[in-house]
Amino acid sequence: MSGVRELTVDLGDRSYPIYIGEGLLDEAGKLLANHGISKKSPLLIITDANVAERHLAHLETVLREGGFGVTSAVIPAGEGSKSLSQLEKLVGVALENGLDRKSAIVALGGGVVGDLAGFVAASYMRGINFVQIPTTILAHDSSVGGKVAVNHPLAKNIIGAFHQPELVLYDLSTLQTLPERDVKAGLSEVVKHGLIWDAEFVSWCDDNAEKLLALDPEALGYALYKGCSVKAAVVSRDERENDLRAILNLGHTIGHALEAVAGYGELLHGEAIAIGMVGSARLAVKLGAPEEVYGVTKRVLSRVGLPVRLPAHLDTDEIMRAMMHDKKFQEGAITFIVPVAIGKVEINKSVSTALIRDIVEQLKQEAV
Amino acid sequence: MSGVRELTVDLGDRSYPIYIGEGLLDEAGKLLANHGISKKSPLLIITDANVAERHLAHLETVLREGGFGVTSAVIPAGEGSKSLSQLEKLVGVALENGLDRKSAIVALGGGVVGDLAGFVAASYMRGINFVQIPTTILAHDSSVGGKVAVNHPLAKNIIGAFHQPELVLYDLSTLQTLPERDVKAGLSEVVKHGLIWDAEFVSWCDDNAEKLLALDPEALGYALYKGCSVKAAVVSRDERENDLRAILNLGHTIGHALEAVAGYGELLHGEAIAIGMVGSARLAVKLGAPEEVYGVTKRVLSRVGLPVRLPAHLDTDEIMRAMMHDKKFQEGAITFIVPVAIGKVEINKSVSTALIRDIVEQLKQEAV
Repeated sequence: MSGVRELTVDLGDRSYPIYIGEGLLDEAGKLLANHGISKKSPLLIITDANVAERHLAHLETVLREGGFGVTSAVIPAGEGSKSLSQLEKLVGVALENGLDRKSAIVALGGGVVGDLAGFVAASYMRGINFVQIPTTILAHDSSVGGKVAVNHPLAKNIIGAFHQPELVLYDLSTLQTLPERDVKAGLSEVVKHGLIWDAEFVSWCDDNAEKLLALDPEALGYALYKGCSVKAAVVSRDERENDLRAILNLGHTIGHALEAVAGYGELLHGEAIAIGMVGSARLAVKLGAPEEVYGVTKRVLSRVGLPVRLPAHLDTDEIMRAMMHDKKFQEGAITFIVPVAIGKVEINKSVSTALIRDIVEQLKQEAV
Repeated sequence: MSGVRELTVDLGDRSYPIYIGEGLLDEAGKLLANHGISKKSPLLIITDANVAERHLAHLETVLREGGFGVTSAVIPAGEGSKSLSQLEKLVGVALENGLDRKSAIVALGGGVVGDLAGFVAASYMRGINFVQIPTTILAHDSSVGGKVAVNHPLAKNIIGAFHQPELVLYDLSTLQTLPERDVKAGLSEVVKHGLIWDAEFVSWCDDNAEKLLALDPEALGYALYKGCSVKAAVVSRDERENDLRAILNLGHTIGHALEAVAGYGELLHGEAIAIGMVGSARLAVKLGAPEEVYGVTKRVLSRVGLPVRLPAHLDTDEIMRAMMHDKKFQEGAITFIVPVAIGKVEINKSVSTALIRDIVEQLKQEAV
């Protein structure tokens, strides 16, 4: 395990480690055992069809050799699997294979797998152990912090829980086969973590965009370590999103609405929030932040290959309506995360819907 | 609010009060406001068709007069409503009515309503406030302690959460219209709380069975206060069922299996666990407890009108299989709660399935 980076998400008795390195899947048996995953009770790996093809047999073998009782369930790839009907199926698989209260669910895959498998772990028998093995760049975000959920036909991530994993195991080798579009979309949350917390890291992303796009292992390992560190720092201070944690939603107020209106799939999550972050930067400047907040935000996102213009065919009224359905809308106001400088944001609950509407219109004309 | 009994479930920053008294529905607006339920965000009352007919209009009026924004959802009465499809419907109602993260769900009804509405509250936006207004005797048990869940076609209460209410409001007046069979079934959990914790209260139940069956308000208020107190004491010491809380499952290992095999509905929950408690008492004596454990258990349950004999047509093999599917089956062993005396039980993980099988057979021949 040379070159393995390790960090801790500090949550008292729910603290857990994140391991980042090449070839870590080979160490899965040892790491799970070291972190209290039971060998006496069966564990269930949940993954999707794409990931299963590349990594499932490998993980099953490693865990079985490590003495674990292993069952697997393969779900269809894509956001459509984050449903209550999929939850019901997986709980059925868990029951049929005798998973008990000491069992663990292992999520092998991207954000969809992590969110769904995490909610299975959170709700099966009112909560069993959970291990995240993210296989996308985007999942560096969703796999840290314990937010798990499925979608409702009317809203995304609306049925869920806070359920922290026992450990997160990030094998950089699994990222080498990612499609280019997913690489770029994943870097969106990496850049976001810089924008909300760490100006120096934003500058590093600006300088190292090409290496990141080329999946250079050293650059990628560092970027994921930094991204996870920011996420861990924020989550440690506010596990259940009472206040500070909301800053992680930079770009998400507009971004989620875009995903909902475009129909899940047309815009990837990372693409939608990239556009949302440009919107937040525009808003920031209107509210008095330095001009560079907009300039730098847009430049860095462009450099890592992300869209910064809102597709013109998406209806502004529909986008506004979708925003009102979001969890960030409460007690009659939208919560907006607004940069005050690069690396620093504030939570603003008094942005008028008229102003947001203007921003949405302007994002349709953004120069690219 | 004369004659109102109050007690606290002590869970640190999740502590909450239970109010028990006649006519408390009239005070609902004041009590909710006093316990932090927001008037700025809409609240959703969830109830079933039977309870709606008797109490919904009253509660809606009281809460609206108290300044709350009130929406209601009425589900079909019965265990069948504790399903993921009902959860999806209710989340849809919540979304359509603009419930946000500061909103509350109010459960008005028995255990089915409380369990389902509680899981809606636990999972909607990853958890919003929750108020329990139990309208059955049985619900004195399920409304305290934060266990919420829905059923899966293969197992009862298998998808759920620990989600504590902000307060529990028990209006004794709502119990006056309960069907006789539900009164008896409800008293089953009352007696259970005596059997696991408080010999004196068991003796009181023995002496006051007739008053309880006649719904004498003073006796009923006292019995519910005592039942809730035992539940609160146990839950305070072990919120997430790591160890002690398991004692609340006296009679439930056999009881749940009986419900599953009989098909939910033939045996009420309280009836099934009454039979289960007689089984546990038989087991206790076999394992060395004094003979009176069996004698007193059976007598008190009979006095409050509960069945003590297992219906002969239920198949023993099926009952045993159902037990293996239960949450109490873990790491290859069944967890059994076994009395050592009246008012005192222990957790036994080494009862052989052969012995349990014998007990099940004997319960079919129980003299009544």
